[in-house]
Amino acid sequence: MTDTLQQLWNTIESRKENRPIGSYTAELFAAGIPRIAQKVGEEAVETAVAALSEGNERLLSEMADLVYHCLVLLSAKDLSWADLQAELARRFK
Amino acid sequence: MTDTLQQLWNTIESRKENRPIGSYTAELFAAGIPRIAQKVGEEAVETAVAALSEGNERLLSEMADLVYHCLVLLSAKDLSWADLQAELARRFK
Amino acid sequence: MTDTLQQLWNTIESRKENRPIGSYTAELFAAGIPRIAQKVGEEAVETAVAALSEGNERLLSEMADLVYHCLVLLSAKDLSWADLQAELARRFK
Amino acid sequence: MTDTLQQLWNTIESRKENRPIGSYTAELFAAGIPRIAQKVGEEAVETAVAALSEGNERLLSEMADLVYHCLVLLSAKDLSWADLQAELARRFK
Repeated sequence: MTDTLQQLWNTIESRKENRPIGSYTAELFAAGIPRIAQKVGEEAVETAVAALSEGNERLLSEMADLVYHCLVLLSAKDLSWADLQAELARRFK
Repeated sequence: MTDTLQQLWNTIESRKENRPIGSYTAELFAAGIPRIAQKVGEEAVETAVAALSEGNERLLSEMADLVYHCLVLLSAKDLSWADLQAELARRFK
Repeated sequence: MTDTLQQLWNTIESRKENRPIGSYTAELFAAGIPRIAQKVGEEAVETAVAALSEGNERLLSEMADLVYHCLVLLSAKDLSWADLQAELARRFK
Repeated sequence: MTDTLQQLWNTIESRKENRPIGSYTAELFAAGIPRIAQKVGEEAVETAVAALSEGNERLLSEMADLVYHCLVLLSAKDLSWADLQAELARRFK
């Protein structure tokens, strides 16, 4: 289970490399960092609203979208999921 | 490295259980879900702004804050980091 | 010019009363307060991103959307544009 | 009552010109556009959370903060309250 995010990260990196037609991830990279940053903000708003007025299924769905767009933002900035984990380890240990 | 989030999750759950004085995490649980949801939204705004106008260090710092507050929100809703990973696996596999 | 917001407010109140078919404003009232609150958050994210990475036309367009959704939120909560102006006068005078 | 926003706008423009010591508005201009854009996003999140979990007084207070930071953002981008009203008139008439 702990490797789910690593697998998602690998998929995102592959989409960035290969830009398959019809891939939403490839579209995000083509749209650029402002669009990806906007999605991070919007998905967080949806996560907050879901936490306050909808059920757990919707909350998990919105938070999964938020995490996914965070990983795409890291990739678009040439950072990595490992960098974020290192920052989390540094900050919270 | 892949266990960083699991360790952070365990720490958050422990703070929820024990509510140590002076713990920011314990304060968040005491403040309640609206306050935690607000922090998720605000940290995402800071992440987006950092991606567009600041360096990578600041971006990683803000995104780490965002991920941390997401985990606290999951815990406050009696969900878990495993639930979020399961949702990510379901959605993106 | 100063009556633009009052006119917009009157239109929104009329849409709430009459719920004309095909009206976006009427759809928002039907969707309810969580949806309207979410739009306020999302349009603010778009406003912030536009300020940092797009031109003035786009910024004005996003901020106009934000103000419009704020007025709809006031109306959905049975508050008014006059209430918001009174609060602004109280706070900033 | 309809001139409340015009008066607030005039005050903001005066703070931009004169930068009085101890003025929060002057501090925002000194901090720059990314900081002001961030505040717009954050106040909108607080407005959305207030609409979903707090009373009308708090909602009006947060929305007033949001409107104020929007006006500061317009001023920082060398736009004006009149520009925003013109955009609203163009869009919603």
